[in-house]
Parts: sequence; structure tokens; C-alpha cells
Amino acid sequence: MSEYAPPVDHIRFVLDHVVDLESLLATERFGHVDSDTVHDVVAEVGRFMAEVVAPTNVDGDRIGASWDDGVVSVPDSFQGAYAGWVESGFGAMPFDAEFGGAGFPWVSAIAVQEMLTSANMALSLCPLLTQGAIDAIHAHGSDEQKATFLPKMLTGQWTGTMNLTEPQAGSDVGAVTTKAEPSPTFDDDGSYLITGQKIYITFGEHQLAEQIVHLVLARTPGSPPGTKGISMFVVPKFLLDENGDPGEANPVSCVSIEHKVGIHGSPTCVMAFEGATGWLVGDEHAGMRNMFTMMNNARLSVGLQGLALSERAYQQSLQYSLDRTQGTAIGAEKGTSSPIIEHPDVRRMLMTQRAWIAAMRCLIYTNAGALDRAEAAVDADEATRWREIADLLIPLSKGLCTDVGVEMTSLAIQIHGGMGYVEETGSAQHWRDSRIAPIYEGTNGIQAADLVGRKLAMRGGGVIVDLLDEFDLRVKELSDIPALAVFGQRLDEAVSVTRQATDHLLATGLADPRSLLGASVPYLRLLGTTVCGGLLAKQAVAAANGADDPSRLESAAFFGEQIMPTVAGLLPAVTSTSDRLYALDADQLA
Amino acid sequence: MSEYAPPVDHIRFVLDHVVDLESLLATERFGHVDSDTVHDVVAEVGRFMAEVVAPTNVDGDRIGASWDDGVVSVPDSFQGAYAGWVESGFGAMPFDAEFGGAGFPWVSAIAVQEMLTSANMALSLCPLLTQGAIDAIHAHGSDEQKATFLPKMLTGQWTGTMNLTEPQAGSDVGAVTTKAEPSPTFDDDGSYLITGQKIYITFGEHQLAEQIVHLVLARTPGSPPGTKGISMFVVPKFLLDENGDPGEANPVSCVSIEHKVGIHGSPTCVMAFEGATGWLVGDEHAGMRNMFTMMNNARLSVGLQGLALSERAYQQSLQYSLDRTQGTAIGAEKGTSSPIIEHPDVRRMLMTQRAWIAAMRCLIYTNAGALDRAEAAVDADEATRWREIADLLIPLSKGLCTDVGVEMTSLAIQIHGGMGYVEETGSAQHWRDSRIAPIYEGTNGIQAADLVGRKLAMRGGGVIVDLLDEFDLRVKELSDIPALAVFGQRLDEAVSVTRQATDHLLATGLADPRSLLGASVPYLRLLGTTVCGGLLAKQAVAAANGADDPSRLESAAFFGEQIMPTVAGLLPAVTSTSDRLYALDADQLA
Repeated sequence: MSEYAPPVDHIRFVLDHVVDLESLLATERFGHVDSDTVHDVVAEVGRFMAEVVAPTNVDGDRIGASWDDGVVSVPDSFQGAYAGWVESGFGAMPFDAEFGGAGFPWVSAIAVQEMLTSANMALSLCPLLTQGAIDAIHAHGSDEQKATFLPKMLTGQWTGTMNLTEPQAGSDVGAVTTKAEPSPTFDDDGSYLITGQKIYITFGEHQLAEQIVHLVLARTPGSPPGTKGISMFVVPKFLLDENGDPGEANPVSCVSIEHKVGIHGSPTCVMAFEGATGWLVGDEHAGMRNMFTMMNNARLSVGLQGLALSERAYQQSLQYSLDRTQGTAIGAEKGTSSPIIEHPDVRRMLMTQRAWIAAMRCLIYTNAGALDRAEAAVDADEATRWREIADLLIPLSKGLCTDVGVEMTSLAIQIHGGMGYVEETGSAQHWRDSRIAPIYEGTNGIQAADLVGRKLAMRGGGVIVDLLDEFDLRVKELSDIPALAVFGQRLDEAVSVTRQATDHLLATGLADPRSLLGASVPYLRLLGTTVCGGLLAKQAVAAANGADDPSRLESAAFFGEQIMPTVAGLLPAVTSTSDRLYALDADQLA
Repeated sequence: MSEYAPPVDHIRFVLDHVVDLESLLATERFGHVDSDTVHDVVAEVGRFMAEVVAPTNVDGDRIGASWDDGVVSVPDSFQGAYAGWVESGFGAMPFDAEFGGAGFPWVSAIAVQEMLTSANMALSLCPLLTQGAIDAIHAHGSDEQKATFLPKMLTGQWTGTMNLTEPQAGSDVGAVTTKAEPSPTFDDDGSYLITGQKIYITFGEHQLAEQIVHLVLARTPGSPPGTKGISMFVVPKFLLDENGDPGEANPVSCVSIEHKVGIHGSPTCVMAFEGATGWLVGDEHAGMRNMFTMMNNARLSVGLQGLALSERAYQQSLQYSLDRTQGTAIGAEKGTSSPIIEHPDVRRMLMTQRAWIAAMRCLIYTNAGALDRAEAAVDADEATRWREIADLLIPLSKGLCTDVGVEMTSLAIQIHGGMGYVEETGSAQHWRDSRIAPIYEGTNGIQAADLVGRKLAMRGGGVIVDLLDEFDLRVKELSDIPALAVFGQRLDEAVSVTRQATDHLLATGLADPRSLLGASVPYLRLLGTTVCGGLLAKQAVAAANGADDPSRLESAAFFGEQIMPTVAGLLPAVTSTSDRLYALDADQLA
């Protein structure tokens, strides 16, 4: 079974040299935090995850969540790990001091989340969904709702859920039919009765916490069709008594849980709301807009899952490659059996994982840092500029990292050979767990549509152009360092390819939306890979200039020289029209 | 649950226009077979697979194989399906008439195998391993062994196994330690007593057949170390009585079975040989050479699994994309909910699957056809030429198609959205099943090593050069057809990239084996993808010139225009040295 060594040195390096934590903490918004404290907390969180949470991961897979007459159980070991999490207060770190948080930048919360997810992705989904609910209530709830729910949700004492999907309403959220009707006491307390069924509700029911705060999308009477008629409600599992404690049970229950490919320890619930009492969060009909508020954070966290599982799977496959001997390596004494890490193709698999992990960490932490800088900016222009970058990176973080997560966890299996296909080895769990991430929180097709729709259109492509211009500076820096000159040349080529692709799609635009959308998925891969290369250039230059060991320079250079160039092969798919996609009808496709 | 529609039209097209079945059947070797008969048999096999075998696939996954005190059970439904298979005689089709076969070309057996594997991959492994054992006994067994075992193995009445792997001997077969010592009756009957433990033995024990014929690699006393000291033995589960029927049980048993990621219906056995009686197959110490004889067929069949699972998964995802409505497609009436097949990114996923399926079918059937032509050749030069092509294509068929199989079954999940992650949907089974194929029968790292080692070296690279020269002719043909002109241009570019990559590796050669092997995996992908493009050009031209519907032209052109160009992005990885791969030591890799 695999242990987990928190990659605190790598996280520290990215925070210091790619995100530039110091300058972020020099802003007024985050001036009360210093970087030593952040690094100390990251180290402390790492120890907790390695010692307390990581050992529970296997239980999640083998025992899993179970349902019995409406009662949902998770493995026993989850109880202790979750209680430790609540006690630690790590979850409250990035939130407002007003409600018990520490007001740390979001990028430090991302470091916590990375390690929590590596330690136990299934369990991490409980705090993750709670985070989404906190964001929604914080941004749109009334003062009373904030005071009532946030303090206990910040610690994790109460958990939260997001109830969006219905059988006919997945990617198309506007098709929601759950009803919210004013209750008999509406005039007194503004309450509604919610009726409908929701599916795919993560941690919709469990025994880890004394209260579950459901956020539910539903339609009020006479609402317009589509997304414009959707409102958001808060529906606690237990109605609160006069002291604000959980009292009478609300008629909301878990009807069944799904039998999934992975994340077995996370109950995915079908929830029945049978006239459950709830209250509007934000304005009526503003439910969809409210959802968008928390979307960036949620999508970033799901992208992070690709990184976190790749890291855990990599560690295990590296260990195996050191322990397992097979064949005689080139240059080894004849007749001896060499550790498989000495074989070139195993090295390639290890370096590929390592390079992509470094790339994903740069992308996601930079994305989180941009969210923080938008928040910390003192003038509106600066805030806009950072918000644009954050918005642009979101579909890349989510779409690219979740796809790559499936690929990297698969490579980790491959290093194990036949052992990798045996469940007891534990490598396959990461691969199975990873497969949900390209699907939920907006499928990667939705991410790509967001990229070529909303994000490409920002300032007529100007946000992307600015970013590529900045990478030109990286090219110059790389070229000045002999060990990184090839990387510099490749980055120059990748930026050029990315400009061509971007210009082509800007010219296509809404005149040919089918071709634009038809090119969206390869374009996301292309742009995302180049952006990773550009960010890793920063890492490589910092590593070369500082006293860092070669470890971080090498993964960046390997990415730049051997992985990033794949973008050239994607250009034809991006610049093709949609003609071939639509040439065949359904019969001909059979 | 998914049904299976045998793709007999696609198979027919490839046999007729890519493999050129007519000219193969015009040879003396296969002159007794006519193409109508082949197509009729394929159609009949297709019906059998769809009606009898395909419905058992889900049982394989959910019920799976089980072990109880040495007795191994497979799902009940497998019994009927397997009995039908034996009764049909389909398995005997490609083998010698002398032992009850029909002497059909191997490429027709590949068509049968494709459909059997799509219908139920787990069950298909039983005939597949039997095929390997047949090949070994046929090529190396004594006349008495052939007469004893082959007739009943050809029908499937008796099944076969291959016992190679031991815990310390996986990719390194030379590390085998199982012992074979002359029995007390050695001087009379040449028998040995076999002692040792073997792992990963597919269908090593089961109740589907009255006899299991184990082929076992073991060492005789005083054998040299490594592969040169290995001999092959035939060890029947039941010793034969005087009538040649299964009699007394041989001391060989299944100690346990593995808990695997997929192919749950196929028992993967740990086998204990405790002084089991066996007889040499072929010469002492020739065991490894004997294995090579059957390796081509076995590797081709495993490559086929990537194709077969992609086909089954594609069919299900296509159906889902027609049934599932979500959102309003471009051009559809506002407010209506469109089948997701109308969305461009779903189209891309469908066309990508379809194009790769066509590509894999061209590659594998061409590979099988080359094996047949080598056999049918009347002069030695012609035989050599075809054998070289077959040998070159084997690592591509196995390595490329099994990797692509994992990717395509993953795309099929993606089309299903959240439903794809729920096991009951059935799409995930194909993905889990597919993950073993890049591992067994020589990991894909081993395939790549074989490619840049033995295969690239054939005639100093001449076999590859000849093939690329032939693709230049395809470029000309494509360029003459307006609808295929872009494909022609892309093929020209891909061939050029492939020449550069090949020349680079020929120049690297054994002077720098680490760099050669370090480049092997991306080179396999690069060469394999170009070869697929070159073969699909044949399909496209035939489709354009004939009266075929656009269906086969479109998948070929989509591959050529949008998938094949990815090879350009792989060139930097192929032409890099191994320096970056070995720059970090184990501590630095953490």
C-alpha cells in the first residue's frame, strides 16, 4: 500500500517563485499574513494529511459508502480523519475572519486542498462541496443566513451540498424542474416548500456531521423557462431550533446512492425533497447567476484533483520502480537484475508524470494566485486585469488537468506492469478515482466551450495575446541560460503555434459557431499545454538562477523540450472546419 | 445495457479493399477458400456473437470468476456461450485440415476474434490462450503430441494455457525458476516432474472444458542461466488414459485468483505445479525460441482487443448520443432540447473513436494478411518480404492499438457524462477491461524496445523505408481526388516527419542504446499513427472510387486531416537524447 509524502518543497517553490507569494502578501488585503506562516501551515497540513488522512484512502475504495434504508455510511476510519480535519481548523483558513476564518489567500487554501485530495480524494469531496456552499451563502445570503450557517460550516462542523442536477438536467442546468412554493408561513418567515428529485449529490447524506446544509436550485411558481427562472434555496437537513441548533428533521432524504467506477468512499446520492422547508439565497430567479459566483473556485478545485491524484500515483510508481528488479539495464553488470527505474522507457514514464505534475501545479497555483490578486488589487483596472487572467485559466485548469490526471494515473499503472492491474496494489484506485474529474463540475466539453466562447472573446482575444506576449519575455530569459536554450526555442515555437490557433479561432468567431466549438477541445489542450510551458519557464529560470537542486529545473526542461512540442500536432485539428464532423448522419455513423 | 451490432460491412470493406482478400485467396495455399465463403462465415459468426455471446458480457463483469478451495467458477451464462462456440467450430477455422481445421487464412480468424472480443473480452481469452497453445504444439510438438492434443483443442473441447510468468520473472522471462526433473519413468516415456509456481495464468483453471492443456516454461537440471536454459513442457490437467481420454488428475492446481481492475470474468490464476507430470515440447533449452513462434499471433490478438473494445464502446456511446437530449444545438429551434450528437464536441468524440477504429482495423487486418502472404508465398524472397512487413507491424498493432483502446473507451465514457461513471451504464466496463492490454503479452515498453531494436534494424531500416516509399504512392492517389487532397498533403507531411524520426534513430543506433530506447515509446506512436494513415489512404481511395457510401471515406479523411498530424508533435521527443531522462537520481525524483 502506498504512503504519501506531502510535496511541501515543490509547493513552497511554486508559491515563492511562480506565484510570487511575497508580493501577494505585501498587499493590504493579505498584509496580516506572512510567508513563513503560510509555509509553516503548509508543512503542518502536510504532516496531518500524511499521518491521519492518507491511511484512510484504501478504506474508501474497498469498504466504500453504503446505503441502508436512507442511512448513508462511510468507512469508520473516515470519522476520525474528518473529526481531525474539523478540529484542525484548516478548512477555515481562506475565509473571512468575521465568520471565524483566517483570511489567508486562496492559493494557500489550494495547497491544503492539494494535499487533502492526494491523501483521500473521496473524503476531500465533503469539504469541497462545503466550500462551494460557503461561497454561495457568503456571496448571496442574507446577513442572518451568514451568521446562522457560516461559522459552523467554516470549521466543517456542518457540511454543505450543491443540488443542481436532475435526470433531464445535467449540462443543461436550465432544464431543472424541482419546485419551490411559498409555504403557509411564507408571509412570516419567507419560507418555501421544495419538492423534487436531485441526482449526483455528493455527500448529500452521511453521518460525519451533525448538520447538512443543502443548496438547491428550484423554480418558483410562474418562473420563466430556462436558466432565467431558477432560484437558489438553502435547505438544512435539520430545521434549526430557537438556539440555532439542529432540531426537527426536514423532509429531505437520500433515496439511493450510485455504484461508481471510483471515489467509492464518497456517497453520490439521489436526494428526494418532499416539501422540504427552504429559504431563498439571493434574489428570486438569480439562482443561475449565483452559481457562477462559486464556479471558478469549484472548477479550480476539480482541476486540482487531476494534479493531486497524479502526485499520489507518481509517488507510488516511483517507489515501485526502485523496488522492482527486472532485466539487466544498459551498462549494468551482465547477469544482474536491475531496478526497473534504470530502463529508459520507465524513466520516460516517470519523467512524464513528474513534468506534468510540475506543469499542473504551476497552472493551478497561478490561477488561484490570480483570483487572490484580483481581490487584493487596489485599483479597478488592476483588478480587472487579474480577474481576466483568472477567468481565462479556469477552463484550462479544469479541462487540461483533469484529462492529464487520467493519463498520468494510467502511466503509474503501466510502471507496475501486471501488478498494476491487480486491485490490491492500489495504483488502479487513483486511475478509477481520477476518471470522474473530466465529467463533473462542467464536462471538459463545457470547459472548452467556455474557453472559445466567453474566454477567447474577452477583449477580442486580448487576454490571451497579452499572456503570449509575456511568454516572449520568458523565451528571452530561457535563451540566456545554456541549459535552457532548447526549452527557449521550443517555447518560441509553441507560442507561435498558439498564436496561429488563436488568430484562426478569433477569425472564425461566431460567424461559424459549429467550427469554433468543433475546434474547442483540441484548442484547450493546445493553449493549456503552452501556458503550462510558459509558467514552467518561470520555474526553470528561478531554479537555474537560485541555489536549487536540479530537480525542478529538469522537470520543467523535460516538459518544455519533449511534451510542450506536442502542441504543433494539434494545430490542424484546431484550424479544420466542422465539415468532417457533420458529414455523416446517424445511420452512416453506425 | 449495450447491444452489439457486428460491424460486418466494415470488416468486409477492409478485407476486400485494404487487405485485398481476392488476391490472397488466389494463392495456391488458400486456393480452396473463396471470398464469398469468408464473408458468409464472418456474417454468421457476427450473428452468433451478437445473439449468444454479447449478452453474457455484463455477467462477466458483475459476477466475475470466483475461487473456492481450488475450484474456479465463471458465470453460468459463460457455459452456454462457450458450448456454442465449441459446437460452431469457428475456432478451428484457420488451422490445418489435418487436425480438423479449415485452413482459412489467419486474417479471417482475426475477423472472428474481433467480434468474439467485442462480444465478451473476458470469455474470449479462453480461446485466445488455447490458440497460443495450439500454435506451440503445432510448431514444436512431436507427431504424437499433435495427434493427441490438437484435434480437441482446435474445437475448444480442450482448452490451453501459457505458463510463463513467475513473481520474479515477468518481462524478464529468463528469470524463471520452475524446475523440471526427469521422472522415475523418464527412460520409458520421457516424462518430467514439474515443480514451481506460476502467476497471471489466464483461464489456468475453470469448468468450461473437460481438459486443460498447460504449456509450462521450466528449467531442466544443470541448465544454463537466463533464457538459454528454459524448456517448454506440456502438462495436462488430467493425465490421459489408454483411450486418450482425461483420466487421473495431475498434481497441478489453482491456489488463488487475482482481484483485477477489469476482465473479471476471466480467472487469472496462481498455479501450483507440485511434481506434475509433463513432456518436453520441442528441444530441451529451446523453450524461449518456441515462445517466439507464437508471439506474433498472440501479440496481434492482444492489439485486436484495443480495436474490439473500442468498437463495442463506440456503439454504445453513439446510441447514447442519439437518445440523450441536452441543451439546444446550433441551428435547432430555440427552446428545444437537442440530442447531444448535434453538439460539435460530441461529434468530435464520436468521429475520433470512429476514425481510430477504422485505423486500427486497417493496421491489424493488414498485419494478419501479411502473415498469411508470408505463408502463401511461392518464392523465398516474397516470403521474406511479407514476413518482414508482418514483423514490423506486430509491435505497432500491439503497442498502438492497446494504448488507443484505453483512450477510445475513455472517450465513450465521456460522451455519457455522469452516467458514464455509474457502473450500471456499462460503458466503464470496456475502459476497465481495456487497461490490461497495454500490459500483458509484453508491456508496451517491451513492444517499443522490440520496434527500435529488432524491427528497425531489419535490412538497416529498409523495411520501414520501403513502407514509407509505398505511402508516397498513396499521397499521389489522394492528391488526385479533390475531397482527399488535404488528406494527401497531410500524409506527405506525416511521411516526411516519420522519415526524419526513422533516420535519426538509425543514426543513433546501438552507439547510444539509452537514447534509442528512451525514444522508443514516442517513436512507436509516431510510426504507428503514420502507418495507420497510409493504410487508411487505401481505404479512402477505394471508397472514393467505388460506389461506397461516404461513411468509410469520412472516417479515413478525418483521421488523415485531424489525427495523423499529431505525429509532428512527437518528433522532438524522438530526437532528444536520454540526458534529461537520466539527469535526476532517485532522491531527486521524489
